[in-house]
Amino acid sequence: MTYFPAIPTPDAEAAMAARERQTRLTKPLGALGRLEDLSVWVASCQGVCPPKQFERARVLVFAGDHGVAAAGVSAYPPEVTAAMVANFDAGGAAVNVLAALAGAGVRVIDIAVDTAEPLSPAIGAHKVRRSSGNIAVTDALTPDEVKEAIEAGRQIADEEVDGGADLLIAGDMGIGNTTPATTLVAALTDTEPVAAIGRGTGIDDAGWGRKTAAVRDALYRTRRSSADPIALLRICGGADLAAITGFCAQAAVRRTPVLLDGVVVTAAALAAERLAPGAKQWWRAGHRSTEPAHSLALRDLELDPIVDLGMRLGEGTGALVALPILRAAVGTLAAMATFEEAGIDT
Amino acid sequence: MTYFPAIPTPDAEAAMAARERQTRLTKPLGALGRLEDLSVWVASCQGVCPPKQFERARVLVFAGDHGVAAAGVSAYPPEVTAAMVANFDAGGAAVNVLAALAGAGVRVIDIAVDTAEPLSPAIGAHKVRRSSGNIAVTDALTPDEVKEAIEAGRQIADEEVDGGADLLIAGDMGIGNTTPATTLVAALTDTEPVAAIGRGTGIDDAGWGRKTAAVRDALYRTRRSSADPIALLRICGGADLAAITGFCAQAAVRRTPVLLDGVVVTAAALAAERLAPGAKQWWRAGHRSTEPAHSLALRDLELDPIVDLGMRLGEGTGALVALPILRAAVGTLAAMATFEEAGIDT
Repeated sequence: MTYFPAIPTPDAEAAMAARERQTRLTKPLGALGRLEDLSVWVASCQGVCPPKQFERARVLVFAGDHGVAAAGVSAYPPEVTAAMVANFDAGGAAVNVLAALAGAGVRVIDIAVDTAEPLSPAIGAHKVRRSSGNIAVTDALTPDEVKEAIEAGRQIADEEVDGGADLLIAGDMGIGNTTPATTLVAALTDTEPVAAIGRGTGIDDAGWGRKTAAVRDALYRTRRSSADPIALLRICGGADLAAITGFCAQAAVRRTPVLLDGVVVTAAALAAERLAPGAKQWWRAGHRSTEPAHSLALRDLELDPIVDLGMRLGEGTGALVALPILRAAVGTLAAMATFEEAGIDT
Repeated sequence: MTYFPAIPTPDAEAAMAARERQTRLTKPLGALGRLEDLSVWVASCQGVCPPKQFERARVLVFAGDHGVAAAGVSAYPPEVTAAMVANFDAGGAAVNVLAALAGAGVRVIDIAVDTAEPLSPAIGAHKVRRSSGNIAVTDALTPDEVKEAIEAGRQIADEEVDGGADLLIAGDMGIGNTTPATTLVAALTDTEPVAAIGRGTGIDDAGWGRKTAAVRDALYRTRRSSADPIALLRICGGADLAAITGFCAQAAVRRTPVLLDGVVVTAAALAAERLAPGAKQWWRAGHRSTEPAHSLALRDLELDPIVDLGMRLGEGTGALVALPILRAAVGTLAAMATFEEAGIDT
């Protein structure tokens, strides 16, 4: 079954024009370092040089609970997921503060929070189920649910792009969600669990041991499916992860650049790249988190994060800290004077 | 002779209050990584928790020519310094674009540009001399000039703080200026020239050889003065470097936080820390440039740069790319909801 059409390639002509324009700006060639590369990427995504500054950057926070939280893999109780959804809605979370500073809009989506009713009809419009299955002992989703969740992510990307979004950021919220994310990365990159498992929200050694046992048990159940991203999302993922997968792939289908966030989003993006090869051309990594599985996924995707600040919060916060740097890349390419304009003879 | 009074210490009580507040915000403790440390630093500089968002961040671009440019140490001719001062004034340079994006004001200062008349009386109000001496063969400054240049930097810091600046950034412009900056760092950190010398604006191997010869010759002339920052600024520095030294030290005297930029500014800051011990408590490193001497100076100052993007432009651009991250640190500490406010029971 084909979930996504062939992924388009960013515009090579705009990229060449951007590289050429960088040689004419009033600075030594290469002196803006990675800003120059990022500016070329944005120009190629937009298909125009100079690129336009982002006018409608959007953060989509995918919220979902995970049955595996019952195994004691998190420093927080599952009820915190729903409480944080309310905090996002009220504007009190880190993602809200950072989005306001970086000039981005925030939308929180209840994909699989463990409550009977979503916080609001809008927030719950794409809800797939209450929580996802405890992957240490059972599948996260049914075959129908994984399709429904990917479709939800695809629809959300379409809604945002149709609404004028010119840059997309996926974020996550869900107590226990680094456990399925880590399992997914370990399965997709064929990595030993102990090399992939981190401290998530800040668990102690005993918690790390429980998390390791859960990941190992889940990974064992994926042993015949490790090349199939859909099967992996079903066996050891979750509805929120599957939705982010669909979202990242569809953003690429819609030729819209994406800034990836932390381990949860990047695990889902890795599944999306397997499902829709080439989608990663439309993505850049916002930051490197402290989770080992995040670095494993970034390496597999060949994405070099823009910042490395020891963050590990999710929500889209790591991508939002990188967004001003992406804006700086666009701004310098678009608005700096050329040597000719400045009357400087080189 | 004492140039600066004893440097005050940032407020420990505000720092403690900031650390405590970080434990109550709606996120796992430590999950914002370096943003948390930076927020504590800003609170301690401002002496208040939560800290206030910067309302008047200012970039001061210190422009000066260097006689050593005649030795072929740069990829550009010396005339580019004056041309770039005009470009800053017209708003066409990278520093202008990045400052506008980061919400900072820009002021360019002709400290020692090799022109008879400054671009405007305001830009030339602190001019010390035309160019600085060719350090490969002679002293950069006279004893009186080094005092005058340090005093210029001190006055500029006073003008800015008196004008309401709550965050200061020093930038540099000057063809050939990485040669004295590198010599200064090599002398102050007792480093072999070849381990300190970089490619500046992008010189080729032959240029690198000429630059190395110039640094080695200048360094030889400092052999009896390596512990005296004033003597070093005179022998192997320059008027712009001495002004930045005075500026960085006086910012600390005036309890005003500073974001350092690249190798030129950080070399001057290293001299300022020697001249006014403890001044570095008021500084953070914006970025790590590709210049080896920059990393040497940062290590000596025990400052860990906020971003590492392969930039090497100067002007204050590396600090300006980090400014939004400092704003993110202030914003999250000041504006996020606490667990109590969000009604979350931990």
